[in-house]
Amino acid sequence: MFKRYLPIFNWLPHYHQRLLGADLLAGLIVTVMVIPQSLAYALLAGLPAVVGLYASILPQLLYTLLGTSRTLAVGPVAIIALMTGAALSSVAAPGSAEYVQAALVLSLLSGAMLMAMGALKMGFFSNFLSHPVISGFLTASGILIAVSQLGSLLGISSSGFTLVERLMTLLPNLSTYNPFTMAIGGGTLLFLVLMRRYGKRSLMSLGVPVTLADLITKAGPVFAVIVTTLVTWYWQLAYREDVAVVGTIPSGLPALSFPWGDVSLWRTLIIPAMLISLVGFVESVSMGQMLAAKRRQRISPNQELIGLGAANLAAGFTSGMPVTGGLSRTVINYDAGAQTPAAGAFAALGIALVTMAFTGWLYYLPIATLAATITVSILTLVDLPMLRQTWRYSRSDFAAMAVTILLTLVEGIEAGIIGGVTLSIALFLYRTSRPHSALVGRVPDTEHFRNVERHDVETVSNAALLRIDESLYFANARYLEDTVYNLVASRPELEHVVLICSAVNLIDASALESLDAINARLKDSDVKLHLSEVKGPVMDQLKKSDFLEALTGRVFLSTYAAWREFS
Amino acid sequence: MFKRYLPIFNWLPHYHQRLLGADLLAGLIVTVMVIPQSLAYALLAGLPAVVGLYASILPQLLYTLLGTSRTLAVGPVAIIALMTGAALSSVAAPGSAEYVQAALVLSLLSGAMLMAMGALKMGFFSNFLSHPVISGFLTASGILIAVSQLGSLLGISSSGFTLVERLMTLLPNLSTYNPFTMAIGGGTLLFLVLMRRYGKRSLMSLGVPVTLADLITKAGPVFAVIVTTLVTWYWQLAYREDVAVVGTIPSGLPALSFPWGDVSLWRTLIIPAMLISLVGFVESVSMGQMLAAKRRQRISPNQELIGLGAANLAAGFTSGMPVTGGLSRTVINYDAGAQTPAAGAFAALGIALVTMAFTGWLYYLPIATLAATITVSILTLVDLPMLRQTWRYSRSDFAAMAVTILLTLVEGIEAGIIGGVTLSIALFLYRTSRPHSALVGRVPDTEHFRNVERHDVETVSNAALLRIDESLYFANARYLEDTVYNLVASRPELEHVVLICSAVNLIDASALESLDAINARLKDSDVKLHLSEVKGPVMDQLKKSDFLEALTGRVFLSTYAAWREFS
Repeated sequence: MFKRYLPIFNWLPHYHQRLLGADLLAGLIVTVMVIPQSLAYALLAGLPAVVGLYASILPQLLYTLLGTSRTLAVGPVAIIALMTGAALSSVAAPGSAEYVQAALVLSLLSGAMLMAMGALKMGFFSNFLSHPVISGFLTASGILIAVSQLGSLLGISSSGFTLVERLMTLLPNLSTYNPFTMAIGGGTLLFLVLMRRYGKRSLMSLGVPVTLADLITKAGPVFAVIVTTLVTWYWQLAYREDVAVVGTIPSGLPALSFPWGDVSLWRTLIIPAMLISLVGFVESVSMGQMLAAKRRQRISPNQELIGLGAANLAAGFTSGMPVTGGLSRTVINYDAGAQTPAAGAFAALGIALVTMAFTGWLYYLPIATLAATITVSILTLVDLPMLRQTWRYSRSDFAAMAVTILLTLVEGIEAGIIGGVTLSIALFLYRTSRPHSALVGRVPDTEHFRNVERHDVETVSNAALLRIDESLYFANARYLEDTVYNLVASRPELEHVVLICSAVNLIDASALESLDAINARLKDSDVKLHLSEVKGPVMDQLKKSDFLEALTGRVFLSTYAAWREFS
Repeated sequence: MFKRYLPIFNWLPHYHQRLLGADLLAGLIVTVMVIPQSLAYALLAGLPAVVGLYASILPQLLYTLLGTSRTLAVGPVAIIALMTGAALSSVAAPGSAEYVQAALVLSLLSGAMLMAMGALKMGFFSNFLSHPVISGFLTASGILIAVSQLGSLLGISSSGFTLVERLMTLLPNLSTYNPFTMAIGGGTLLFLVLMRRYGKRSLMSLGVPVTLADLITKAGPVFAVIVTTLVTWYWQLAYREDVAVVGTIPSGLPALSFPWGDVSLWRTLIIPAMLISLVGFVESVSMGQMLAAKRRQRISPNQELIGLGAANLAAGFTSGMPVTGGLSRTVINYDAGAQTPAAGAFAALGIALVTMAFTGWLYYLPIATLAATITVSILTLVDLPMLRQTWRYSRSDFAAMAVTILLTLVEGIEAGIIGGVTLSIALFLYRTSRPHSALVGRVPDTEHFRNVERHDVETVSNAALLRIDESLYFANARYLEDTVYNLVASRPELEHVVLICSAVNLIDASALESLDAINARLKDSDVKLHLSEVKGPVMDQLKKSDFLEALTGRVFLSTYAAWREFS
């Protein structure tokens, strides 16, 4: 009981020194690595940079207490930051106090929804974000984020949360670019791309051991931060050349915040909060599952909802922003050797320490450096080969993906997700509304039956064995009637029709009505209706109706039993 | 080609004298019978009574030309009239010229939508109105209509289109009832109920032949109309006692109408027109199919859309109201012996004749008589036993039905249908998102495999045969992963997992991703993944991906083949 609701008791009692060493080292590495990231994502959401630090402290500590993944690191992430910015810009002006307040309301709403979904065991809800929709959404978001960073990389101001809005504010001011900002941004970008692609290999060829080479490569952004900060400070580029820098970050831990706002604000933010919760949960849980599987651990999706919900509530009460398990911060944590959630807690304490004492060191950090960091990490989300693969595999999955991408780019994030999910569901319903069915015959010398059009099989003339390849429900009930009537009309010698129900997982009230009608109409034509291979749960349900008494034929356990009867 | 788009050429060339006699008689009977009905339904929609006559002329003639049912009679029907009234009362005041104009716009919109659906072969769209939703909707509408007629039966004015609105306007004025109106209404109601229940049997016991007895019973409303009209005229109740009567009906055929209105009116009426089209189509086509089946004829749903669409366009251009194939008028036509659509055309001409020359005879017809006619015929829609049956068969179908009834009564017709359909779809998706699966074993001495928990079957220890009872798609992809991982975790001795795909009708891109993940993770645990009984269409699709190359195990044609391999 205790262990189920407070997963920390699964590992804390067995904690020992070797684990402590590993976790402390991982915590230190994560602290250093995620500070630039956290600042950058807060800026991406249109919030003051320090909010990203605040959102990396208490939320992570609460997740440590309540989450089930051993290595997940929780904090601001790129997609959620983008969604947060899009949601907030419709209710307040970026930079205003209302905007910051609204971010807190969004965190609280999202936290409450996640907690409620966890309490109601509604984790399955996230399954309706199909793979093509998520993949399309990530690709489109990657493009949106990359474009949104262009302005910061060039020293031009831009705003908006659709592609068109961004480009419309960016392009007319292209000539006002700041050459120093562009040099810092472009240089960092180039450095990071080269580090990613060639860093590890080059270091190893210089004789550096593999783990160290890996670590140095991953620390690329930290080097970039240090070097560009020093350069900007030394030549005083912020004052002399107007290079945008992070500036003064208030030091000290965040004060407790109680963002009540007015009712209309809460109401406006409900839909965005729901989407942020779902997307955040999907991102977090799929990564958590992947990493847990690598170490043969398990995570509990419903408990994850509780953990992430608590983290977001904490963000809302400590001047933060919506958070979730982040891809890059988690991978850093995992690769740095984190063994238990304690590593996350150590990183949170490390960031708290920085916030209390060292924010002054970040004054001269150029915004362009952060923009380059975001751009490089976000471009891994853009997965264009997946478009081609999906096109090849299934046109309707491709349609869902393409619509998600287009709507996200053109109409915005909410429209993209909602449109993609709606289309996925509609296409699924359409497919199941016109089910495949096949006349089958016996594979010679076996008890196995296959489609007469695909295999060389034996048939009998007075009986039709019709395999229905779909659950029978309202959307296809009438289609079933048509199929059977057309079959009987085209073969006047028929005396028996056997519906093979091996693929029928459900017969709802509408389909029962249709089966009743088929049975009655076939009776008028002196054709008997039989069923075979009806599954247990379906049979249980049919017994609750009068259909089995009215049925003119029999219910055979196997199709082979029906075959023996009629041949 | 010709015959397909103008179904009239299927029967007109073979027309002969015997058919003509039968059709003429049926046409005459229908003319007499449907006049009170048509007036009543126009009043129910809040329109002038004569509109009901207009809507029974040209629409029926066009359906004769374009429809595929031989006996369907087209005109105003109760449900559609109720829906029309609800839609119109939100855009204009009943009795105003705008109200009548809006009815024409609604007919045109509905006609255009039906035609478009027919041209695009979208008849399947109506399948999403599941049986419980339709049945619940009819029951709730029956109750609404009966309550709406209470005012007319008692001589009290009432208005509104939800139960609460009706009762709120009715109850406070209950004391203002008109005793003469009440006597006429109540008397007619009693007479009609008795005729329905005992009429045919009593007449037969008096020696009247069965067909004549049936006809006389059905003509009950006509007798009531004649008697109450004469009574009201003789004692001049309309003037002396304020009994509401039909009054002056303009004589002559309807003038052509071109209801353009403004854009906002058209836009407001789009959703109601869509629902009216769908409900009208479902009512019409299900009755048409039932009657066609009785005479071993076929109807074409897509051509029916064209026919009904043309009928509604005609109604819009000739001062009518939305129409569809009506239950009671069709049954009258069928029972009166109609052989071809010509009977409907004769009835339309008969009504045209009455409209031209005999509307004066209807002056003293009391509204209460019409209300009693509607009430009796509508109460057949209320099917309370169906509620109990559905509850017994399936809780989720019952939920859809109950929600449809409640929403229709409380929130109105649109909310009822939309809510019911949405809930049906959501429940179906929920059910398929947590699919049933079963470990199966071999039924001894056969090649047949059944659930180990339900049947006495043979198993092998190192291989698990897992039958998945659902198509694999985004909503259940992760659930499948959980199922397999839990299975493998609980049986460490496993070396082979066979997924039996006999019930898998679809593997979408999300599920393919999950299968890939399962395959990879089982490989890490030295467990091989096999498939069996993969259906043709599913196999074709898998071949378009890389999954089959990556699969650690084999694809068996039958589960028995897999069994032989591992036992």
